[in-house]
Amino acid sequence: PPGPGAVLDAATAFIRNFAAENPGTGDPRRRIAEVAAQVQRYGTYEHTPEELAFGARVAWRNAARCIGRLYWNNLTVRDMRHVQDPDGIAEQCFEHLRFATNGGRVRPVITVFAPDRPGRPAPTLLGEQLVRYADDPRSAHRVELAKELGWKGGETPFEVLPLLVQPGSGGRSPEFYEIPEDAVLEVPLTHPRHPGFAALGLRWYAVPAVCDMSLEIGGITYPAAPFNGWYMGTEIGSRNLGDTDRYDMLPAVAALFGLDTGSDRTLWRDRALVELNAAVLHSYDQAGVTIADHHTESTRFLAHVEREGKHGRPVPTDWSWIVPPLSGSATAVFHRYYDPPDPDLRPAFVHRTPPTALTCPHHA
Amino acid sequence: PPGPGAVLDAATAFIRNFAAENPGTGDPRRRIAEVAAQVQRYGTYEHTPEELAFGARVAWRNAARCIGRLYWNNLTVRDMRHVQDPDGIAEQCFEHLRFATNGGRVRPVITVFAPDRPGRPAPTLLGEQLVRYADDPRSAHRVELAKELGWKGGETPFEVLPLLVQPGSGGRSPEFYEIPEDAVLEVPLTHPRHPGFAALGLRWYAVPAVCDMSLEIGGITYPAAPFNGWYMGTEIGSRNLGDTDRYDMLPAVAALFGLDTGSDRTLWRDRALVELNAAVLHSYDQAGVTIADHHTESTRFLAHVEREGKHGRPVPTDWSWIVPPLSGSATAVFHRYYDPPDPDLRPAFVHRTPPTALTCPHHA
Ligand code: HEM
Ligand code: HEM
Repeated sequence: PPGPGAVLDAATAFIRNFAAENPGTGDPRRRIAEVAAQVQRYGTYEHTPEELAFGARVAWRNAARCIGRLYWNNLTVRDMRHVQDPDGIAEQCFEHLRFATNGGRVRPVITVFAPDRPGRPAPTLLGEQLVRYADDPRSAHRVELAKELGWKGGETPFEVLPLLVQPGSGGRSPEFYEIPEDAVLEVPLTHPRHPGFAALGLRWYAVPAVCDMSLEIGGITYPAAPFNGWYMGTEIGSRNLGDTDRYDMLPAVAALFGLDTGSDRTLWRDRALVELNAAVLHSYDQAGVTIADHHTESTRFLAHVEREGKHGRPVPTDWSWIVPPLSGSATAVFHRYYDPPDPDLRPAFVHRTPPTALTCPHHA
Repeated sequence: PPGPGAVLDAATAFIRNFAAENPGTGDPRRRIAEVAAQVQRYGTYEHTPEELAFGARVAWRNAARCIGRLYWNNLTVRDMRHVQDPDGIAEQCFEHLRFATNGGRVRPVITVFAPDRPGRPAPTLLGEQLVRYADDPRSAHRVELAKELGWKGGETPFEVLPLLVQPGSGGRSPEFYEIPEDAVLEVPLTHPRHPGFAALGLRWYAVPAVCDMSLEIGGITYPAAPFNGWYMGTEIGSRNLGDTDRYDMLPAVAALFGLDTGSDRTLWRDRALVELNAAVLHSYDQAGVTIADHHTESTRFLAHVEREGKHGRPVPTDWSWIVPPLSGSATAVFHRYYDPPDPDLRPAFVHRTPPTALTCPHHA
């Protein structure tokens, strides 16, 4: 954990930036003095609700791998810093899901729980996203842990895993909580033209709420700060359902569409991918659940780059994450360079377990 | 141009590497002394044919943006360093094309013309590739230049541009040469299932011979050193024919296949891309012309990375160029990190006009 000097430096930089971008919020020198006194006394300090909201939004704006940043200033920030016990955290995660789901009109939301304090690490959420399925190979570890804790389940396809909350201190083991049905909106997948597609039994959830990243603002770390946007179709159609180490559905889709899988050269994988992605967009549309296609989201991202440029701000960007995994060169984001990512930029979302060099860049 | 000190340093490093990778070729110290004497006297030195061939192959091996490197050691190196006059250069470029075409069984070939010498820049080839079409928007500059030089043509679709040779010195203007028909194999594009596709009138050539990069080996620059492999289908189907600033064929293909272009969400671009790519692979296969699909070439590249690893050699790699522009995540190369590119690595192919920051990373 950073010492008081580092905390104060980071806090000062953040407060200055907060004041610069929020004219009329008072003299930053006064606020810095206040923060300095808190840091000297407690080794940490408390963000105002306005600072927290601004910090979370700028963390999104700074997310070099996120194509969805055009709406960074419209993030709903739920200030739950007073919630510290596992039961309360679970309850507020469910509320987060309900609020974000919004009957299908998905809202970008972050819920910020208590930060780490000197000698007192905060509770965390185990797993990658609030909602995950037990038969997703990516969740094997969480399934194992849930079962060790006594969870009975994971026998049927697309079973929603319980939430796992790791208390912050005292060596206590995680608690598990079944996610209430009314907190998880799901979409069964059908195809716009192939009636047999439904029989594949595929489905996905509406709200991708990432919970394995810490929110870092001005020297303060919020390790439990789940956030969500809406889905971009390729995340489900290309990656979650298509990747060979995920649901690996391309062979089944190819069989359904009668594609010739005898050779790579028939482009059966490419065709199956398009059908799978078409099914995802179609099904979410039918269900009235917000989802973006990768063409639209690419156009929006370039609008974001332009708008930020008008404000004189760089847009740190990781090309390999921004370019969609389907039809890369058919999207406008493919054909240009961007400002390079800066790992030291803050506020930021930071992976709690830093990816090791040889894992997939898209599974970090 | 590098001074004698820089040339000798680069030469020494190269000769040492040549000796290390080619046991039994004699004592590198003796060769280095010989080279040093040449450099001291002339400011440059002459590669042996073996050094030249090795240098060209290693330049390919070092090409961080090339997915086709598995066969780096099978490059045919045509030593044409004695050819200096425009007529001779043009003639040998045509011979290059004939040899590389090989009746359709495309062979990877490089032809190395005279190097730059102190105060005597060598002739160069203008344009990106030996074969280019006049109605390709990327060739607008070459078309203009050819017409200024007196070329009559460029009125019909897919007309092959003349070769433009820029003499090395004396402020002489470029010479232009019509490429003989027997040097350019072309493939008219048809679709495996849609008979109407042929009516689009699309075609492409067999041999992509890049001529806008210099070959740099051990301190010597060969500015005219056209090289080719075989095509990977996406270069034609996704980029040359699909990009909006190239032939921009997705709308026409979509119309042909009756796709609903009313919304991005129908994925009509993605479907049209797959059909266009399928047509390319199918047509080259039908014509008996070598072409790789992106799935196969991805698998080969990973075999290359593994084999190089066994030799203890890094494989500098530019992820954004290696991952194919179609169905990125459905190829194995997508899902991992690589050794970073090293712009100082030599031998290397180097763009003669360095790309500026805001051009497309894929049009450098
Ligand atoms: C509003 C709609 C949004 C869309 C369409 C969107 C889209 C995406 C996509 C496609 C990715 C790449 C995911 C992957 O390949 O695994 C991504 C990554 C990311 N997004 Fe967004 N996003 C949205 C909202 C948000 C919000 C609200 C936040 C935070 C407040 C956010 C922060 C991030 C971060 C930190 C990453 C990188 C994740 C990592 O490194 O694993 N995004 N986004
Ligand atoms: C044998 C079959 C080959 C295949 C399938 C192949 C494939 C590719 C592809 C797909 C690209 C990216 C092109 C683009 O996006 O514009 C590329 C780039 C490149 N290749 Fe290869 N290649 C092959 C042979 C060669 C050979 C023989 C050489 C040199 C001796 C070579 C050197 C390069 C270089 C230098 C680049 C980067 C070009 C640039 O920066 O513009 N390749 N290759």
